[in-house]
Amino acid sequence: MAERPLLGGLEAGGTKFVCAVGTGPDDIRALERFPTTTPEETLGRVIDFFRRQPEPIAALGIGSFGPVDPDPGSPTYGYITTTPKPGWAHTDVAGTLRRALNVPVAFDTDVNAAALGEQRWGAGRGLHTFVYLTIGTGIGGGVIVNGRRHHGRQHPEIGHLFIPRLPGDDRPGHCPFHGDCLEGLASGPAIAARWGRPAPELPPNHPAWDEVAQYLAFGLANLILTLSPQRLILGGGVMHQTHLFPRIRRHVAACINGYVALPDLDTFIVPPALGDRAGVLGALALAEEVMSGLKHGIL
Amino acid sequence: MAERPLLGGLEAGGTKFVCAVGTGPDDIRALERFPTTTPEETLGRVIDFFRRQPEPIAALGIGSFGPVDPDPGSPTYGYITTTPKPGWAHTDVAGTLRRALNVPVAFDTDVNAAALGEQRWGAGRGLHTFVYLTIGTGIGGGVIVNGRRHHGRQHPEIGHLFIPRLPGDDRPGHCPFHGDCLEGLASGPAIAARWGRPAPELPPNHPAWDEVAQYLAFGLANLILTLSPQRLILGGGVMHQTHLFPRIRRHVAACINGYVALPDLDTFIVPPALGDRAGVLGALALAEEVMSGLKHGIL
Ligand SMILES: Nc1ncnc2c1ncn2[C@@H]1O[C@H](COP(=O)(O)OP(=O)(O)O)[C@@H](O)[C@H]1O
Ligand SMILES: Nc1ncnc2c1ncn2[C@@H]1O[C@H](COP(=O)(O)OP(=O)(O)O)[C@@H](O)[C@H]1O
Ligand SMILES: [Zn+2]
Ligand SMILES: [Zn+2]
Repeated sequence: MAERPLLGGLEAGGTKFVCAVGTGPDDIRALERFPTTTPEETLGRVIDFFRRQPEPIAALGIGSFGPVDPDPGSPTYGYITTTPKPGWAHTDVAGTLRRALNVPVAFDTDVNAAALGEQRWGAGRGLHTFVYLTIGTGIGGGVIVNGRRHHGRQHPEIGHLFIPRLPGDDRPGHCPFHGDCLEGLASGPAIAARWGRPAPELPPNHPAWDEVAQYLAFGLANLILTLSPQRLILGGGVMHQTHLFPRIRRHVAACINGYVALPDLDTFIVPPALGDRAGVLGALALAEEVMSGLKHGIL
Repeated sequence: MAERPLLGGLEAGGTKFVCAVGTGPDDIRALERFPTTTPEETLGRVIDFFRRQPEPIAALGIGSFGPVDPDPGSPTYGYITTTPKPGWAHTDVAGTLRRALNVPVAFDTDVNAAALGEQRWGAGRGLHTFVYLTIGTGIGGGVIVNGRRHHGRQHPEIGHLFIPRLPGDDRPGHCPFHGDCLEGLASGPAIAARWGRPAPELPPNHPAWDEVAQYLAFGLANLILTLSPQRLILGGGVMHQTHLFPRIRRHVAACINGYVALPDLDTFIVPPALGDRAGVLGALALAEEVMSGLKHGIL
């Protein structure tokens, strides 16, 4: 039996980078996290990490913060494009790493990578249509339709859905583009700004949480009505508040109000089976895709 | 050169049925509309129409009001299922017509059929991802992803998206399930109830229209953020108010506010190229799909 090739994965986040070497969730040979600083320094640490490994990787997968260009046919494939993050606009992440490490590289958005990780090894196994949503510093999602990561004309931006305000809530939203879109009402920084305390410090019985659950439920209801997914996987720092899950399930059912039949909510709205490793494992799964593409001669 | 087979199409609407025989938009041999009454009478008229034709059809396509079961693998495939419409719940539309006319039958939702019609012969030609939305007695849509009609776990219900209220609007919405979802704020009957006059009688400069355009724009923005479509095709009775198009385009751009790059709006948000015939022509296109399936031996 042939040995499985050693894969490299990079979760390139706006706050931190996570690098891993291995073949899957049960075989991670090395893993390292470091803060996102300048492109030079940060990509330098990535290159150094992979060069330091005792065995070379056969391919590298990258899930990156954005906006990115994930279109393999485009001249700027693998770039971070117009980000406001200082220094990072128009950075050729995939090309830089491919040239330095001399391996085939696959590149997609961070949330698509996490969705792929869950599809390959987690809560998305066996599903044709599902959504992975992360509720953290921002809100973003990866959409899988008919087994494939959905891009469309560009790619989805489901963190910024427009949703109703709750009666009596007149505190401003915090999205710089839209004010009170989903991200502006329910991301970690939005919760902190709207309630005057960092989200992790708000106790579970604080009224913030039921409001957040309600806003997230409106967003999920819109995803259900548009995509008719088989599952909604919710990750990110804010979802460390696990009491949000039952609240969100209740509010989604109330919103939809019988208009479409919902499956068992406890298995429909779930945390990522890979936990906070969904992103970096998804990057490994991207590398695995490159390998099987090479094997089948399509790259 | 082989002659193209003669196709039958049925648009089964909650208000009216439309039957056609032909091979495409430029070759409609017969077309008939009649009001939707009881299933017996209405399906009887359909059977009668097709039996009366000088040449027999080779296959029948049906786009039906719903909720329907469009899953060819299901025992109730081709049924209208739980509709509140008196007499129509659990009606085997496809089976009844297949047995009476003795031809292969394809069945989908009315909006998916219209989307297919636009994809085959109209404003969806050459596109991989787009949405057909009808704004009429209700609001509903067909979603094409990667060239295929999207179903997901069940099928989308994009007429009922949850959207923000405009400041100062405290008139109730009219969806029996959700109150002020998109359909509850912007369908024909909702407009009539909210402004005290039938929608067709409201003059173009009436304030209703800018409000309707704004609510539709929120719904379209949510579709853009979720599906990243190449085009949004808006049909149905309400869109006969063609002044809505420029207003909607303006409000969509304002909503999105530069967060995702939008293509030229005049070709992005458009009326159906097939006009009010999108539904029945889409049904013909469904019949055409059956024929090519038969030819390729997959049915
Ligand atoms: N236990 C927690 N409870 C509530 N909010 C949290 C918790 N942990 C992290 N957060 C919030 O989540 C955000 C960080 O999200 P995270 O998913 O960890 O990273 P990022 O989105 O930057 O990749 C911060 O706004 C933080 O306040
Ligand atoms: N010219 C018009 N202007 C505004 N509203 C219209 C117009 N024509 C039809 N409507 C409204 O559209 C709805 C009917 O929609 P239509 O698409 O024709 O049929 P249905 O949705 O029943 O298949 C009614 O509520 C009607 O008032
Ligand atoms: Zn926003
Ligand atoms: Zn509704």
